[in-house]
Amino acid sequence: MELPEQDAAHMARAVALAARGHGATSPNPVVGCVVLDAGGAVAGEGFHAYAGGPHAEIGALAEAGERARGGTAYVTLEPCDHTGRTGPCSRALLDAGIARVVVAVADPNPKAAGGAARLRAAGVEVTTGVLAAEAGRVNEEWLTYARLGRSHVTWKFAATLDGRSAAADGSSQWITSPEARADVHRMRAAADAIVAGVGTVLADDPRLTARPDGPSAGRRPPLRVVVDTEARTPPDARVFDDLAPTLLAVADDADTGRLKADILRLPRHGSGLDLRALLTELAAREVVGAFLEGGPALAGSFLREGLTDRVVAYVAPALLGSGRAALGPAGVGTIGAVHRLTFDEISPIGPDVRLIARPVAQPSREQ
Amino acid sequence: MELPEQDAAHMARAVALAARGHGATSPNPVVGCVVLDAGGAVAGEGFHAYAGGPHAEIGALAEAGERARGGTAYVTLEPCDHTGRTGPCSRALLDAGIARVVVAVADPNPKAAGGAARLRAAGVEVTTGVLAAEAGRVNEEWLTYARLGRSHVTWKFAATLDGRSAAADGSSQWITSPEARADVHRMRAAADAIVAGVGTVLADDPRLTARPDGPSAGRRPPLRVVVDTEARTPPDARVFDDLAPTLLAVADDADTGRLKADILRLPRHGSGLDLRALLTELAAREVVGAFLEGGPALAGSFLREGLTDRVVAYVAPALLGSGRAALGPAGVGTIGAVHRLTFDEISPIGPDVRLIARPVAQPSREQ
Repeated sequence: MELPEQDAAHMARAVALAARGHGATSPNPVVGCVVLDAGGAVAGEGFHAYAGGPHAEIGALAEAGERARGGTAYVTLEPCDHTGRTGPCSRALLDAGIARVVVAVADPNPKAAGGAARLRAAGVEVTTGVLAAEAGRVNEEWLTYARLGRSHVTWKFAATLDGRSAAADGSSQWITSPEARADVHRMRAAADAIVAGVGTVLADDPRLTARPDGPSAGRRPPLRVVVDTEARTPPDARVFDDLAPTLLAVADDADTGRLKADILRLPRHGSGLDLRALLTELAAREVVGAFLEGGPALAGSFLREGLTDRVVAYVAPALLGSGRAALGPAGVGTIGAVHRLTFDEISPIGPDVRLIARPVAQPSREQ
Repeated sequence: MELPEQDAAHMARAVALAARGHGATSPNPVVGCVVLDAGGAVAGEGFHAYAGGPHAEIGALAEAGERARGGTAYVTLEPCDHTGRTGPCSRALLDAGIARVVVAVADPNPKAAGGAARLRAAGVEVTTGVLAAEAGRVNEEWLTYARLGRSHVTWKFAATLDGRSAAADGSSQWITSPEARADVHRMRAAADAIVAGVGTVLADDPRLTARPDGPSAGRRPPLRVVVDTEARTPPDARVFDDLAPTLLAVADDADTGRLKADILRLPRHGSGLDLRALLTELAAREVVGAFLEGGPALAGSFLREGLTDRVVAYVAPALLGSGRAALGPAGVGTIGAVHRLTFDEISPIGPDVRLIARPVAQPSREQ
């Protein structure tokens, strides 16, 4: 019998294993697994490395071999009970003779859930909720996607200490350091979609790719999404190059006559588009995590609609005093309505500081 | 003979001792001193605790007594050679029979300098420049005051992550946490003056005191300075209460007829006052460190004139998207002219983050 502290230590290891798959498993979750033998010694470890690859449990059981019999398995997410691209993990755990399964987070996916119930029915001791917060954090994008049926949104911005993203004449290269920009490219590469507004496309003509020199090897490049209510993106914009697929989200009545792009028509909402509908459509295209960059108006709209799940701010040690604000109107008229967040991480990145924040739970905003 | 690493270690201790006097020694510097006996063992420690109190060397020598003979003294600032409120420390070191003196920073004050020369002339071995950067940092305000003949300026602001200090309707209570506000009060209490613009006085009617319940014991309360070009501060403003003295800085031709305040008349500069002249006048009143708070316009003017020596930003995990910017126009039209800083400290303060930054040396701005 494991003591709770040992449970926590082994689950922490499983969470660390799960994190290794981060950015490469979409539309699957990240999962880590540690298998102990009957004597409590670590016999196998595994994680889900890429969609279509073996599940974490399968890798850990394979490594443990016969030592798994009578042992314990720590899994960051409830073992699946369905046959998708791979067989059900609940069956694999039973076949290996595992006596106890410790789970961090229950599977919210109705197609995959039921693993714990099947294991219990077969006489396996199942403990749930161990390090649930930590395991939830590492799977944040996927859990949002699975629970809410929409893509998870990370809004990234780079600004001066006084919150400006361009000088009065519009110039902005470079506010943050090469180190910060390289970090942004790593974050982009881990996303399934990179989202920008048409204003940013018209102003900067960005490529919106994960790396300047093309898609990273071994994984589909992130989908580029331009939120372009009136279909104003020029046909020769760089987002239409062949480095990655591009989706143009326009109003259902927009005139797209001259554009030969992949068009997504959405209902209007206020002066823009129904962003919730956009995220539902993106989820249907297996976009688990979307990375929102530019501009201030679009970022304000996502925030106002309660559709910003994480904020990544790169703050440069610099002051402008005028120029473009990093964030446009976000539906706040008075201080009581301010969008409250919590800082999760505060990290120096080169000379800059990166602040990762998360909205304080506001149930009324997300229904 | 001390090895350099030992020199650094003892000087680091002297710097830590010096820091204990921070905020209480104006118009004197902070100074720390460690005295070793002839065998290299620590025999005495001292620091300058308050203006008029014993100098650091005197305290350390008193503690060491006869053990100082043939020993070494580590001093963060060159020992003074003049008789001010206390006798010259150079003489005291000689009288105690110290054989070697290690100095971090040379004294820029012509009235006090000459201590190292007197010691050398008397046959004492003098080493200078040991941990000069660290010792300079702890004495930052005073060194600016002594070298430039003006008060050192710390600009403090509190803002959301997107750089706003009030919502669209002007409401701002409270953007930052009680912990951050308590930290501000500690910083205010360590300053010699608290400076604000008339706009802030008219909008918020602040007391500009170091603590809501009156001046801290044992030290004169910081001078309140209102930058009020046209003398618009109402006679019944709270800054005129009896909790601390108040200085009204106005244009030399401003009409102050109905005000019975302490008035400082200054030349006009642009649409405001000559802020360099203000800081020179404040230095003449023994204001070593000035703490600038509110509003955005005045902060922009100080920054434009190259008169901001340190920036303390309290950033709340919150987003507004509209409302008052923390910093107003600061003379920057294009990104190449951005005011570049470096982050010195990044500290969580309650749920907020405090960023302390310093301008990158821009010699052209400070002549």
